[in-house]
Amino acid sequence: MILARVIGNVWSTRKDESLRGLKFLVVQPVTLSYHEDGTPRLQEIGHTLIAADQIGAGEDEIVMVASGSSARQGLANNSIPVDATIVGIIDKETFEVRA
Amino acid sequence: MILARVIGNVWSTRKDESLRGLKFLVVQPVTLSYHEDGTPRLQEIGHTLIAADQIGAGEDEIVMVASGSSARQGLANNSIPVDATIVGIIDKETFEVRA
Amino acid sequence: MILARVIGNVWSTRKDESLRGLKFLVVQPVTLSYHEDGTPRLQEIGHTLIAADQIGAGEDEIVMVASGSSARQGLANNSIPVDATIVGIIDKETFEVRA
Amino acid sequence: MILARVIGNVWSTRKDESLRGLKFLVVQPVTLSYHEDGTPRLQEIGHTLIAADQIGAGEDEIVMVASGSSARQGLANNSIPVDATIVGIIDKETFEVRA
Amino acid sequence: MILARVIGNVWSTRKDESLRGLKFLVVQPVTLSYHEDGTPRLQEIGHTLIAADQIGAGEDEIVMVASGSSARQGLANNSIPVDATIVGIIDKETFEVRA
Repeated sequence: MILARVIGNVWSTRKDESLRGLKFLVVQPVTLSYHEDGTPRLQEIGHTLIAADQIGAGEDEIVMVASGSSARQGLANNSIPVDATIVGIIDKETFEVRA
Repeated sequence: MILARVIGNVWSTRKDESLRGLKFLVVQPVTLSYHEDGTPRLQEIGHTLIAADQIGAGEDEIVMVASGSSARQGLANNSIPVDATIVGIIDKETFEVRA
Repeated sequence: MILARVIGNVWSTRKDESLRGLKFLVVQPVTLSYHEDGTPRLQEIGHTLIAADQIGAGEDEIVMVASGSSARQGLANNSIPVDATIVGIIDKETFEVRA
Repeated sequence: MILARVIGNVWSTRKDESLRGLKFLVVQPVTLSYHEDGTPRLQEIGHTLIAADQIGAGEDEIVMVASGSSARQGLANNSIPVDATIVGIIDKETFEVRA
Repeated sequence: MILARVIGNVWSTRKDESLRGLKFLVVQPVTLSYHEDGTPRLQEIGHTLIAADQIGAGEDEIVMVASGSSARQGLANNSIPVDATIVGIIDKETFEVRA
Protein backbone atom coordinates (compact mmCIF):
# COMPACT_ATOMS: atom_id res chain seq x y z
CA MET A 1 0.00 0.00 0.00
CA ILE A 2 1.12 3.53 -0.51
CA LEU A 3 1.12 6.20 2.17
CA ALA A 4 -0.93 9.31 1.51
CA ARG A 5 -2.10 12.42 3.31
CA VAL A 6 -5.81 13.23 3.28
CA ILE A 7 -6.07 16.71 1.80
CA GLY A 8 -9.76 17.25 1.25
CA ASN A 9 -13.12 16.19 -0.01
CA VAL A 10 -14.37 15.99 -3.53
CA TRP A 11 -17.90 16.03 -4.88
CA SER A 12 -19.18 14.36 -7.97
CA THR A 13 -22.86 14.76 -8.75
CA ARG A 14 -22.72 12.93 -12.06
CA LYS A 15 -21.06 9.58 -11.52
CA ASP A 16 -21.38 5.84 -12.05
CA GLU A 17 -24.57 4.73 -10.27
CA SER A 18 -22.71 2.04 -8.34
CA LEU A 19 -20.62 4.71 -6.60
CA ARG A 20 -23.60 6.41 -4.91
CA GLY A 21 -23.29 6.40 -1.14
CA LEU A 22 -19.54 5.88 -1.11
CA LYS A 23 -17.40 8.58 0.47
CA PHE A 24 -14.43 9.78 -1.57
CA LEU A 25 -11.44 11.69 -0.27
CA VAL A 26 -8.67 13.56 -2.05
CA VAL A 27 -5.33 12.12 -0.96
CA GLN A 28 -1.77 13.09 -1.80
CA PRO A 29 0.75 10.20 -1.85
CA VAL A 30 3.79 10.75 0.38
CA THR A 31 7.12 9.04 0.79
CA LEU A 32 9.47 8.86 3.73
CA SER A 33 12.51 11.10 3.43
CA TYR A 34 14.88 12.59 5.96
CA HIS A 35 15.80 15.99 7.27
CA GLU A 36 19.52 16.83 7.40
CA ASP A 37 19.58 15.92 11.09
CA GLY A 38 18.24 12.46 10.29
CA THR A 39 14.69 12.93 11.53
CA PRO A 40 12.13 11.49 9.15
CA ARG A 41 9.51 13.47 7.28
CA LEU A 42 6.78 12.64 4.80
CA GLN A 43 7.31 14.30 1.44
CA GLU A 44 4.68 14.63 -1.30
CA ILE A 45 5.30 12.38 -4.30
CA GLY A 46 3.40 11.53 -7.47
CA HIS A 47 -0.08 12.66 -8.34
CA THR A 48 -3.17 13.32 -6.30
CA LEU A 49 -5.62 10.42 -6.00
CA ILE A 50 -9.29 10.07 -5.20
CA ALA A 51 -9.78 7.16 -2.79
CA ALA A 52 -12.89 5.55 -1.36
CA ASP A 53 -13.02 5.74 2.44
CA GLN A 54 -14.91 3.39 4.72
CA ILE A 55 -12.79 3.97 7.80
CA GLY A 56 -13.55 7.60 8.52
CA ALA A 57 -10.21 9.24 7.81
CA GLY A 58 -9.99 12.95 8.52
CA GLU A 59 -8.14 15.81 6.88
CA ASP A 60 -4.36 15.74 7.39
CA GLU A 61 -4.30 12.14 8.57
CA ILE A 62 -1.76 9.76 7.00
CA VAL A 63 -3.48 6.74 5.52
CA MET A 64 -2.63 3.47 3.74
CA VAL A 65 -4.21 3.29 0.28
CA ALA A 66 -4.67 -0.04 -1.52
CA SER A 67 -4.77 0.19 -5.32
CA GLY A 68 -6.01 -1.87 -8.25
CA SER A 69 -8.19 -4.92 -7.80
CA SER A 70 -7.13 -5.00 -4.13
CA ALA A 71 -8.92 -1.69 -3.61
CA ARG A 72 -12.20 -3.40 -4.39
CA GLN A 73 -11.64 -6.06 -1.71
CA GLY A 74 -12.08 -3.40 0.92
CA LEU A 75 -15.60 -2.50 -0.21
CA ALA A 76 -18.98 -4.07 0.56
CA ASN A 77 -19.58 -4.50 -3.18
CA ASN A 78 -16.43 -5.53 -5.01
CA SER A 79 -17.72 -5.22 -8.55
CA ILE A 80 -17.70 -1.46 -8.69
CA PRO A 81 -15.22 0.72 -10.58
CA VAL A 82 -12.99 1.83 -7.68
CA ASP A 83 -9.21 1.43 -7.90
CA ALA A 84 -8.06 3.17 -4.69
CA THR A 85 -9.39 2.60 -1.17
CA ILE A 86 -8.22 3.84 2.22
CA VAL A 87 -7.65 0.67 4.26
CA GLY A 88 -5.98 2.05 7.38
CA ILE A 89 -5.07 5.24 9.23
CA ILE A 90 -1.45 5.36 10.36
CA ASP A 91 -0.94 6.03 14.07
CA LYS A 92 0.72 9.42 14.42
CA GLU A 93 3.54 8.19 16.62
CA THR A 94 4.68 5.72 14.00
CA PHE A 95 6.77 8.16 12.08
CA GLU A 96 7.52 10.46 14.97
CA VAL A 97 9.54 8.04 17.09
CA ARG A 98 11.81 6.97 14.25
CA ALA A 99 15.03 8.98 13.80
CA MET B 1 -8.85 7.03 -9.13
CA ILE B 2 -6.79 9.63 -10.83
CA LEU B 3 -8.01 13.08 -11.76
CA ALA B 4 -7.91 14.03 -15.43
CA ARG B 5 -9.06 16.82 -17.71
CA VAL B 6 -11.08 15.86 -20.80
CA ILE B 7 -9.16 17.31 -23.74
CA GLY B 8 -10.86 15.87 -26.79
CA ASN B 9 -12.28 13.02 -28.79
CA VAL B 10 -10.48 10.29 -30.61
CA TRP B 11 -11.63 8.09 -33.46
CA SER B 12 -10.58 4.59 -34.19
CA THR B 13 -12.14 2.94 -37.22
CA ARG B 14 -10.13 -0.26 -36.95
CA LYS B 15 -10.46 -1.62 -33.42
CA ASP B 16 -11.32 -4.66 -31.35
CA GLU B 17 -14.88 -5.66 -32.25
CA SER B 18 -15.93 -5.63 -28.59
CA LEU B 19 -15.20 -1.89 -28.38
CA ARG B 20 -17.79 -0.89 -31.02
CA GLY B 21 -20.41 1.46 -29.63
CA LEU B 22 -18.28 2.62 -26.69
CA LYS B 23 -17.37 6.31 -26.53
CA PHE B 24 -13.72 7.12 -25.93
CA LEU B 25 -12.31 10.43 -24.74
CA VAL B 26 -8.79 11.78 -24.64
CA VAL B 27 -7.97 12.76 -21.06
CA GLN B 28 -4.89 14.35 -19.53
CA PRO B 29 -4.13 13.33 -15.91
CA VAL B 30 -3.77 16.26 -13.50
CA THR B 31 -2.52 16.64 -9.97
CA LEU B 32 -3.31 19.22 -7.33
CA SER B 33 -0.61 21.83 -6.82
CA TYR B 34 -0.64 25.32 -5.39
CA HIS B 35 -0.08 28.84 -6.59
CA GLU B 36 2.31 30.99 -4.57
CA ASP B 37 -0.66 32.59 -2.77
CA GLY B 38 -1.84 29.14 -1.67
CA THR B 39 -4.80 28.78 -4.02
CA PRO B 40 -4.98 25.34 -5.58
CA ARG B 41 -4.64 24.56 -9.24
CA LEU B 42 -4.68 21.41 -11.34
CA GLN B 43 -1.41 20.78 -13.11
CA GLU B 44 -0.90 18.33 -15.99
CA ILE B 45 1.07 15.21 -15.01
CA GLY B 46 2.03 11.97 -16.74
CA HIS B 47 0.86 10.84 -20.13
CA THR B 48 -2.35 11.28 -22.04
CA LEU B 49 -4.88 8.45 -21.71
CA ILE B 50 -7.81 7.22 -23.74
CA ALA B 51 -10.71 6.43 -21.41
CA ALA B 52 -14.14 4.91 -22.03
CA ASP B 53 -16.97 7.26 -21.05
CA GLN B 54 -20.48 6.24 -20.08
CA ILE B 55 -21.29 9.33 -18.07
CA GLY B 56 -21.28 11.96 -20.76
CA ALA B 57 -18.25 14.02 -19.77
CA GLY B 58 -17.60 17.13 -21.85
CA GLU B 59 -14.44 18.86 -22.97
CA ASP B 60 -12.51 20.65 -20.18
CA GLU B 61 -14.37 18.86 -17.39
CA ILE B 62 -12.35 17.29 -14.58
CA VAL B 63 -13.15 13.61 -14.22
CA MET B 64 -12.25 10.62 -12.05
CA VAL B 65 -10.70 7.81 -14.08
CA ALA B 66 -10.59 4.23 -12.76
CA SER B 67 -7.77 2.09 -14.15
CA GLY B 68 -6.93 -1.58 -14.58
CA SER B 69 -9.47 -4.32 -13.90
CA SER B 70 -11.54 -1.77 -11.97
CA ALA B 71 -12.10 0.14 -15.23
CA ARG B 72 -14.00 -2.84 -16.59
CA GLN B 73 -16.39 -2.88 -13.62
CA GLY B 74 -17.87 0.37 -14.85
CA LEU B 75 -18.92 -1.08 -18.20
CA ALA B 76 -21.98 -3.07 -19.24
CA ASN B 77 -19.71 -5.83 -20.52
CA ASN B 78 -16.74 -6.38 -18.25
CA SER B 79 -14.80 -8.80 -20.44
CA ILE B 80 -13.62 -6.26 -22.95
CA PRO B 81 -10.09 -4.86 -23.29
CA VAL B 82 -10.57 -1.49 -21.60
CA ASP B 83 -8.21 -0.36 -18.82
CA ALA B 84 -9.39 3.22 -18.19
CA THR B 85 -12.97 4.39 -17.61
CA ILE B 86 -14.42 7.74 -16.58
CA VAL B 87 -16.47 6.97 -13.46
CA GLY B 88 -17.39 10.47 -12.27
CA ILE B 89 -17.29 14.16 -13.16
CA ILE B 90 -15.89 16.37 -10.43
CA ASP B 91 -18.14 19.22 -9.37
CA LYS B 92 -16.45 22.48 -10.36
CA GLU B 93 -16.71 24.06 -6.93
CA THR B 94 -14.75 21.23 -5.35
CA PHE B 95 -11.33 22.63 -6.15
CA GLU B 96 -12.39 26.25 -6.30
CA VAL B 97 -13.44 26.67 -2.67
CA ARG B 98 -10.29 25.11 -1.25
CA ALA B 99 -7.44 27.52 -0.44
CA MET C 1 -5.49 2.95 -22.66
CA ILE C 2 -2.23 4.57 -23.50
CA LEU C 3 -1.32 5.92 -26.90
CA ALA C 4 1.73 4.44 -28.60
CA ARG C 5 3.49 4.55 -31.94
CA VAL C 6 4.28 1.24 -33.63
CA ILE C 7 8.04 1.28 -34.22
CA GLY C 8 8.86 -2.23 -35.38
CA ASN C 9 8.66 -5.96 -35.08
CA VAL C 10 10.33 -8.22 -32.62
CA TRP C 11 11.13 -11.91 -32.86
CA SER C 12 11.33 -14.37 -30.05
CA THR C 13 12.16 -17.94 -30.95
CA ARG C 14 12.28 -19.18 -27.38
CA LYS C 15 9.07 -18.18 -25.62
CA ASP C 16 6.17 -19.40 -23.55
CA GLU C 17 4.38 -22.09 -25.61
CA SER C 18 1.04 -20.30 -25.21
CA LEU C 19 2.38 -17.28 -27.12
CA ARG C 20 3.05 -19.19 -30.36
CA GLY C 21 1.07 -17.77 -33.27
CA LEU C 22 0.53 -14.38 -31.66
CA LYS C 23 1.99 -11.34 -33.42
CA PHE C 24 3.99 -8.94 -31.27
CA LEU C 25 4.92 -5.38 -32.13
CA VAL C 26 7.36 -2.96 -30.57
CA VAL C 27 5.51 0.18 -29.56
CA GLN C 28 6.69 3.44 -28.03
CA PRO C 29 4.19 5.18 -25.71
CA VAL C 30 3.45 8.79 -26.64
CA THR C 31 1.72 11.68 -24.94
CA LEU C 32 0.00 14.73 -26.36
CA SER C 33 2.01 17.92 -26.07
CA TYR C 34 1.93 21.19 -27.94
CA HIS C 35 4.17 23.15 -30.25
CA GLU C 36 4.75 26.82 -29.39
CA ASP C 37 2.07 27.82 -31.91
CA GLY C 38 -0.45 25.61 -30.13
CA THR C 39 -0.61 22.77 -32.64
CA PRO C 40 -0.56 19.37 -30.99
CA ARG C 41 2.14 16.78 -31.38
CA LEU C 42 2.75 13.32 -29.98
CA GLN C 43 5.88 13.12 -27.87
CA GLU C 44 7.61 9.91 -26.80
CA ILE C 45 7.23 9.11 -23.10
CA GLY C 46 8.16 6.21 -20.85
CA HIS C 47 9.65 2.94 -21.96
CA THR C 48 9.23 0.81 -25.05
CA LEU C 49 6.65 -1.97 -24.80
CA ILE C 50 6.02 -5.21 -26.63
CA ALA C 51 2.29 -5.53 -27.37
CA ALA C 52 0.23 -8.34 -28.90
CA ASP C 53 -1.56 -7.25 -32.08
CA GLN C 54 -4.70 -8.81 -33.50
CA ILE C 55 -5.82 -5.78 -35.47
CA GLY C 56 -3.08 -5.55 -38.04
CA ALA C 57 -1.38 -2.30 -37.03
CA GLY C 58 1.44 -1.12 -39.26
CA GLU C 59 4.68 0.71 -38.60
CA ASP C 60 4.30 4.37 -37.59
CA GLU C 61 0.59 4.04 -36.81
CA ILE C 62 -0.70 5.43 -33.52
CA VAL C 63 -2.49 2.77 -31.52
CA MET C 64 -4.39 2.35 -28.26
CA VAL C 65 -2.75 -0.21 -25.98
CA ALA C 66 -4.66 -1.88 -23.13
CA SER C 67 -2.51 -3.05 -20.22
CA GLY C 68 -2.72 -5.52 -17.36
CA SER C 69 -5.52 -8.06 -17.08
CA SER C 70 -7.51 -5.96 -19.58
CA ALA C 71 -4.91 -6.79 -22.23
CA ARG C 72 -5.91 -10.45 -21.98
CA GLN C 73 -9.57 -9.66 -22.66
CA GLY C 74 -8.65 -8.73 -26.23
CA LEU C 75 -7.21 -12.16 -27.00
CA ALA C 76 -8.86 -15.40 -28.11
CA ASN C 77 -7.31 -17.15 -25.12
CA ASN C 78 -7.33 -14.99 -22.01
CA SER C 79 -5.20 -17.22 -19.79
CA ILE C 80 -1.90 -16.46 -21.45
CA PRO C 81 0.89 -14.27 -20.07
CA VAL C 82 0.29 -11.11 -22.10
CA ASP C 83 -0.01 -7.72 -20.35
CA ALA C 84 -0.21 -5.32 -23.33
CA THR C 85 -2.47 -5.60 -26.37
CA ILE C 86 -3.18 -3.24 -29.25
CA VAL C 87 -6.96 -2.74 -29.19
CA GLY C 88 -7.42 0.03 -31.74
CA ILE C 89 -5.66 2.10 -34.38
CA ILE C 90 -6.21 5.84 -34.04
CA ASP C 91 -7.55 7.55 -37.15
CA LYS C 92 -4.86 9.88 -38.46
CA GLU C 93 -7.08 12.93 -38.62
CA THR C 94 -7.85 12.70 -34.93
CA PHE C 95 -4.74 14.51 -33.80
CA GLU C 96 -4.18 16.44 -36.98
CA VAL C 97 -7.34 18.54 -36.98
CA ARG C 98 -6.97 19.59 -33.34
CA ALA C 99 -5.22 22.91 -32.72
CA MET D 1 8.81 -8.42 -7.88
CA ILE D 2 10.56 -5.31 -6.78
CA LEU D 3 13.45 -5.21 -4.36
CA ALA D 4 13.00 -3.19 -1.19
CA ARG D 5 14.76 -2.54 2.08
CA VAL D 6 12.80 -3.00 5.30
CA ILE D 7 13.03 0.33 7.11
CA GLY D 8 10.63 0.02 10.00
CA ASN D 9 7.29 -0.84 11.45
CA VAL D 10 4.05 1.00 11.17
CA TRP D 11 0.99 0.91 13.38
CA SER D 12 -2.58 1.44 12.37
CA THR D 13 -5.19 1.18 15.09
CA ARG D 14 -8.10 2.14 12.85
CA LYS D 15 -8.07 -0.09 9.79
CA ASP D 16 -10.13 -2.43 7.66
CA GLU D 17 -11.32 -5.27 9.91
CA SER D 18 -9.92 -7.89 7.52
CA LEU D 19 -6.39 -6.59 8.12
CA ARG D 20 -6.38 -7.37 11.87
CA GLY D 21 -3.61 -9.78 12.80
CA LEU D 22 -1.52 -9.09 9.72
CA LYS D 23 1.95 -7.65 10.25
CA PHE D 24 2.85 -4.63 8.12
CA LEU D 25 6.33 -3.31 7.46
CA VAL D 26 7.54 -0.06 5.96
CA VAL D 27 9.77 -0.85 2.97
CA GLN D 28 11.74 1.40 0.64
CA PRO D 29 12.09 0.13 -2.96
CA VAL D 30 15.68 -0.10 -4.18
CA THR D 31 17.32 -0.62 -7.55
CA LEU D 32 20.70 -2.03 -8.47
CA SER D 33 23.24 0.58 -9.49
CA TYR D 34 27.01 0.61 -9.56
CA HIS D 35 29.83 2.41 -7.80
CA GLU D 36 32.52 3.96 -10.02
CA ASP D 37 34.72 0.89 -9.47
CA GLY D 38 31.96 -1.37 -10.77
CA THR D 39 30.85 -2.85 -7.47
CA PRO D 40 27.06 -3.01 -7.17
CA ARG D 41 24.99 -1.15 -4.63
CA LEU D 42 21.29 -0.86 -3.88
CA GLN D 43 19.98 2.66 -4.34
CA GLU D 44 16.64 3.95 -3.05
CA ILE D 45 14.06 4.56 -5.78
CA GLY D 46 10.39 5.50 -5.89
CA HIS D 47 8.13 5.89 -2.90
CA THR D 48 7.91 4.11 0.41
CA LEU D 49 5.46 1.22 0.59
CA ILE D 50 3.62 -0.59 3.36
CA ALA D 51 3.81 -4.34 2.75
CA ALA D 52 2.24 -7.29 4.54
CA ASP D 53 4.84 -9.70 5.94
CA GLN D 54 4.30 -13.36 6.65
CA ILE D 55 7.94 -14.39 6.38
CA GLY D 56 9.41 -12.55 9.34
CA ALA D 57 11.62 -10.02 7.61
CA GLY D 58 13.74 -7.82 9.87
CA GLU D 59 14.88 -4.24 9.69
CA ASP D 60 17.51 -3.54 7.00
CA GLU D 61 16.91 -6.81 5.18
CA ILE D 62 16.41 -6.73 1.41
CA VAL D 63 13.15 -8.34 0.41
CA MET D 64 11.15 -9.21 -2.71
CA VAL D 65 7.75 -7.51 -2.74
CA ALA D 66 4.90 -8.77 -4.94
CA SER D 67 2.34 -6.13 -5.92
CA GLY D 68 -1.24 -5.97 -7.13
CA SER D 69 -3.49 -9.02 -7.19
CA SER D 70 -0.37 -11.19 -6.89
CA ALA D 71 0.23 -9.74 -3.42
CA ARG D 72 -2.99 -11.35 -2.25
CA GLN D 73 -1.90 -14.80 -3.41
CA GLY D 74 0.71 -14.81 -0.67
CA LEU D 75 -1.86 -14.43 2.11
CA ALA D 76 -4.01 -16.98 3.91
CA ASN D 77 -7.09 -14.97 2.93
CA ASN D 78 -6.84 -13.60 -0.60
CA SER D 79 -9.95 -11.43 -0.54
CA ILE D 80 -8.51 -8.69 1.63
CA PRO D 81 -7.42 -5.22 0.50
CA VAL D 82 -3.64 -5.74 0.42
CA ASP D 83 -1.64 -4.80 -2.69
CA ALA D 84 1.95 -5.39 -1.51
CA THR D 85 3.32 -8.48 0.24
CA ILE D 86 6.85 -9.53 1.18
CA VAL D 87 7.32 -12.92 -0.50
CA GLY D 88 11.03 -13.56 0.07
CA ILE D 89 14.12 -12.29 1.86
CA ILE D 90 17.16 -11.93 -0.39
CA ASP D 91 20.26 -13.76 0.78
CA LYS D 92 22.89 -11.17 1.68
CA GLU D 93 25.64 -12.68 -0.46
CA THR D 94 23.52 -12.35 -3.59
CA PHE D 95 24.49 -8.79 -4.32
CA GLU D 96 27.85 -8.91 -2.61
CA VAL D 97 29.54 -11.42 -4.93
CA ARG D 98 28.53 -9.64 -8.11
CA ALA D 99 31.01 -7.06 -9.49
CA MET E 1 5.41 -6.62 -21.89
CA ILE E 2 8.48 -4.67 -20.99
CA LEU E 3 11.95 -5.38 -22.33
CA ALA E 4 14.65 -6.20 -19.80
CA ARG E 5 18.23 -7.41 -19.70
CA VAL E 6 19.04 -10.41 -17.51
CA ILE E 7 21.76 -9.22 -15.14
CA GLY E 8 22.14 -12.01 -12.62
CA ASN E 9 20.75 -14.52 -10.22
CA VAL E 10 19.31 -13.96 -6.81
CA TRP E 11 18.94 -16.33 -3.91
CA SER E 12 16.27 -16.31 -1.27
CA THR E 13 16.44 -19.02 1.36
CA ARG E 14 13.52 -17.70 3.39
CA LYS E 15 10.55 -17.23 1.09
CA ASP E 16 6.90 -18.02 0.56
CA GLU E 17 6.56 -21.84 0.45
CA SER E 18 4.75 -21.69 -2.90
CA LEU E 19 7.82 -20.17 -4.56
CA ARG E 20 10.08 -23.19 -3.85
CA GLY E 21 11.44 -24.71 -7.05
CA LEU E 22 10.88 -21.60 -9.15
CA LYS E 23 13.94 -19.96 -10.70
CA PHE E 24 14.25 -16.21 -10.24
CA LEU E 25 16.44 -13.87 -12.23
CA VAL E 26 17.47 -10.26 -11.67
CA VAL E 27 16.45 -8.22 -14.70
CA GLN E 28 16.97 -4.56 -15.55
CA PRO E 29 14.21 -2.98 -17.70
CA VAL E 30 15.48 -1.32 -20.88
CA THR E 31 13.96 1.01 -23.44
CA LEU E 32 14.82 1.59 -27.07
CA SER E 33 16.73 4.79 -27.72
CA TYR E 34 19.00 5.92 -30.52
CA HIS E 35 22.63 6.79 -30.98
CA GLU E 36 23.39 10.09 -32.75
CA ASP E 37 23.89 8.21 -36.03
CA GLY E 38 20.42 6.72 -35.73
CA THR E 39 21.37 3.20 -34.75
CA PRO E 40 19.20 1.83 -31.96
CA ARG E 41 20.42 0.88 -28.52
CA LEU E 42 18.79 -0.45 -25.38
CA GLN E 43 19.09 1.93 -22.47
CA GLU E 44 18.46 1.04 -18.82
CA ILE E 45 15.26 2.53 -17.40
CA GLY E 46 13.34 2.21 -14.17
CA HIS E 47 14.15 -0.12 -11.31
CA THR E 48 15.58 -3.60 -11.17
CA LEU E 49 13.04 -6.42 -11.02
CA ILE E 50 13.08 -10.04 -9.88
CA ALA E 51 11.27 -12.19 -12.44
CA ALA E 52 10.36 -15.88 -12.48
CA ASP E 53 11.93 -17.73 -15.40
CA GLN E 54 10.62 -20.91 -16.96
CA ILE E 55 12.25 -20.43 -20.36
CA GLY E 56 15.88 -20.70 -19.43
CA ALA E 57 17.09 -17.15 -20.09
CA GLY E 58 20.80 -16.52 -19.64
CA GLU E 59 22.81 -13.58 -18.41
CA ASP E 60 22.86 -10.57 -20.79
CA GLU E 61 19.93 -11.83 -22.87
CA ILE E 62 17.08 -9.42 -23.63
CA VAL E 63 13.76 -10.80 -22.47
CA MET E 64 10.07 -9.91 -22.49
CA VAL E 65 8.66 -9.66 -18.96
CA ALA E 66 4.92 -9.90 -18.28
CA SER E 67 3.74 -8.13 -15.13
CA GLY E 68 0.79 -8.23 -12.76
CA SER E 69 -1.83 -10.95 -12.91
CA SER E 70 -0.59 -11.79 -16.43
CA ALA E 71 2.71 -12.89 -14.92
CA ARG E 72 0.91 -15.69 -13.12
CA GLN E 73 -0.61 -17.02 -16.35
CA GLY E 74 2.86 -18.11 -17.45
CA LEU E 75 3.33 -20.39 -14.45
CA ALA E 76 2.24 -23.97 -13.81
CA ASN E 77 0.49 -22.79 -10.64
CA ASN E 78 -1.21 -19.44 -11.10
CA SER E 79 -2.20 -18.84 -7.50
CA ILE E 80 1.25 -17.96 -6.25
CA PRO E 81 2.54 -14.49 -5.36
CA VAL E 82 4.58 -13.73 -8.49
CA ASP E 83 4.05 -10.45 -10.39
CA ALA E 84 6.81 -10.64 -13.02
CA THR E 85 7.60 -13.56 -15.34
CA ILE E 86 9.97 -13.91 -18.27
CA VAL E 87 7.75 -15.03 -21.17
CA GLY E 88 10.16 -14.82 -24.12
CA ILE E 89 13.77 -14.23 -25.09
CA ILE E 90 14.22 -11.65 -27.82
CA ASP E 91 16.20 -12.84 -30.85
CA LYS E 92 19.46 -10.90 -30.96
CA GLU E 93 19.08 -9.76 -34.55
CA THR E 94 15.79 -8.06 -33.78
CA PHE E 95 17.32 -4.84 -32.55
CA GLU E 96 20.50 -5.09 -34.55
CA VAL E 97 19.01 -4.85 -38.05
CA ARG E 98 16.90 -1.82 -37.26
CA ALA E 99 18.46 1.59 -37.98
